[in-house]
Amino acid sequence: MTTDRPGSTTIATIANEVGVSVATVSKVLNGRTDVAPETRARVEASLERHSYRRRVSRQATGSSGQIDLVFHEFDSEWAMEIIQGVEAVTAVSGHDLMLSQLGGRHHPPQQWVDALPNRRPLGVLFVVSSPTQAQQQQLQRQRIPFVVIDTDSATSASVPTVGSSNFNGGLQATRHLLELGHRRLAVISGHEDVLCSRERVAGFRFAHEEAGVAVDAELVRYGNFTVESGYRHGMDLLNRPERPTAIFAGADMQAVGVLRAARRLGLRIPDDLSLIGYDNLPMSAWTDPALTTINQPLRDMAGTAARILLDLARGVPITTTRIDLVTELIVRESTAPPTS
Amino acid sequence: MTTDRPGSTTIATIANEVGVSVATVSKVLNGRTDVAPETRARVEASLERHSYRRRVSRQATGSSGQIDLVFHEFDSEWAMEIIQGVEAVTAVSGHDLMLSQLGGRHHPPQQWVDALPNRRPLGVLFVVSSPTQAQQQQLQRQRIPFVVIDTDSATSASVPTVGSSNFNGGLQATRHLLELGHRRLAVISGHEDVLCSRERVAGFRFAHEEAGVAVDAELVRYGNFTVESGYRHGMDLLNRPERPTAIFAGADMQAVGVLRAARRLGLRIPDDLSLIGYDNLPMSAWTDPALTTINQPLRDMAGTAARILLDLARGVPITTTRIDLVTELIVRESTAPPTS
Repeated sequence: MTTDRPGSTTIATIANEVGVSVATVSKVLNGRTDVAPETRARVEASLERHSYRRRVSRQATGSSGQIDLVFHEFDSEWAMEIIQGVEAVTAVSGHDLMLSQLGGRHHPPQQWVDALPNRRPLGVLFVVSSPTQAQQQQLQRQRIPFVVIDTDSATSASVPTVGSSNFNGGLQATRHLLELGHRRLAVISGHEDVLCSRERVAGFRFAHEEAGVAVDAELVRYGNFTVESGYRHGMDLLNRPERPTAIFAGADMQAVGVLRAARRLGLRIPDDLSLIGYDNLPMSAWTDPALTTINQPLRDMAGTAARILLDLARGVPITTTRIDLVTELIVRESTAPPTS
Repeated sequence: MTTDRPGSTTIATIANEVGVSVATVSKVLNGRTDVAPETRARVEASLERHSYRRRVSRQATGSSGQIDLVFHEFDSEWAMEIIQGVEAVTAVSGHDLMLSQLGGRHHPPQQWVDALPNRRPLGVLFVVSSPTQAQQQQLQRQRIPFVVIDTDSATSASVPTVGSSNFNGGLQATRHLLELGHRRLAVISGHEDVLCSRERVAGFRFAHEEAGVAVDAELVRYGNFTVESGYRHGMDLLNRPERPTAIFAGADMQAVGVLRAARRLGLRIPDDLSLIGYDNLPMSAWTDPALTTINQPLRDMAGTAARILLDLARGVPITTTRIDLVTELIVRESTAPPTS
């Protein structure tokens, strides 16, 4: 095994070793399709052996490269927090920020990945989405680094990911309600096939076990992180004969929907119902009443992911593939001891 | 004067006519600085005469070019509406969307404009910002089309702009309050140096004149389009000995701040105070009470601007430089006849 100093290997070294032309190596590096699979594999293997890193080309003026920011979908203030966190980093580093969304899908379309070598982004940030296993290998072959912000359950352990401690968030929210004296708690989370949704519910269950309080399976709901979903589940939960005295909503947007449902039913918050949100979006301080919530440091998460991506693009090795930033309970006006 | 068919002129034609090399014409088209000013002027003049349009280069796969979307600043749901409106168009047309913000400035920094020829975007969309006169000429020389979404007072009539009828919005909001019987109305608008702020106030004044009701100058406020600004002016207005019975907030975010101020002072909406917002952001339907507001069709404005930009990039002439989409009164729960 050859041990080069990082960056000391040239394309010519690789071409010489494999016994192909420099042009062929270049084609492989550029993701061109007109290279025989067997040749490509030998070139890739040699590139691996030499830990070859494509040099970052810098233009004479202006941008020194693009960062792709890919959302699974755009949704209100949540997405804006992520955008602002990334932009704060790219504005300083002088990189361009390219924005796209996958229309609710959790993996990019193959066509999009295939086209990346033509655009040559410095790297890709995926938000609540990730490349498939095959796409990950493809990106690695093209030497296009990527980092995932938050994660769905399909993300493998080898993917650099920045999230926050969802289990801990669910735990803190539920402990707070139990400590206030609530014993009949409901939870409304996101899609059940998204890991962060299940983790928050796991924290909810764990807090119940700690306190020796049984969870009513009827009061555990999966929906999506929208106002409408919160309103729908809120109406349903609060119309039950034995309604919960507290609701933990997995997103501030959902909590806004629950606020609306409670008001529609003539229930006062926090007198008749305690309500806690999740995210600590700017708007959560301005609802009526102001929301008790779990701070998910979205801007910090996005900024951290962007800095890791820039490191990866410069060839700086990363020491851990998953960073979870801390979540924190923010007590405002929507939670209180139960009255009945 | 030569009248070519659009697109029939080649760089060679221009080079031949001016008596310079093809490389020199290419340099001028690419915005390179290593061309003598006098030579550049002659080349530009010839390009003008021939109505030369740079051909849009299409890559083999994937993106066929970038659209730059430049915000004066990012602010919550408002910016997200614009992003979604533009993205809906670029996703279909297959163009990449590049996002940036000017940190609150209303003109791009010169360095940014100077670097554009290196990136070669298909075009630029400016949101509540615009290039200076000199920058406009520079963009025109580089054949980089641009469209402004909304506008500040500095935008010249020659700049393609998509806005909405701010005067009409102010008029509709105020007429609604006057028709309910209010006679002591306040308005909280955005920065006084931004045209749309002044236009909404002009509509407010016009509606008063129509109805023969005097405007109290003390009740006309300029701030900025944030929750904090609405809260601050709301507290101030509602603490006056003779407080207004109705407030027209120039943005839904401001209205949320007024809601908060009213609640802090124990005033019920709409019983003690009528409140109307502006924008019709998704959240305005979910506040408590739901906001009566003026619909500003942000997504349509952004989508229309994006389509005009794509037309300009294809060389389609535009017939009008300013399009104002219609604003509309949305009556919800926050307005009612005065009780006192």
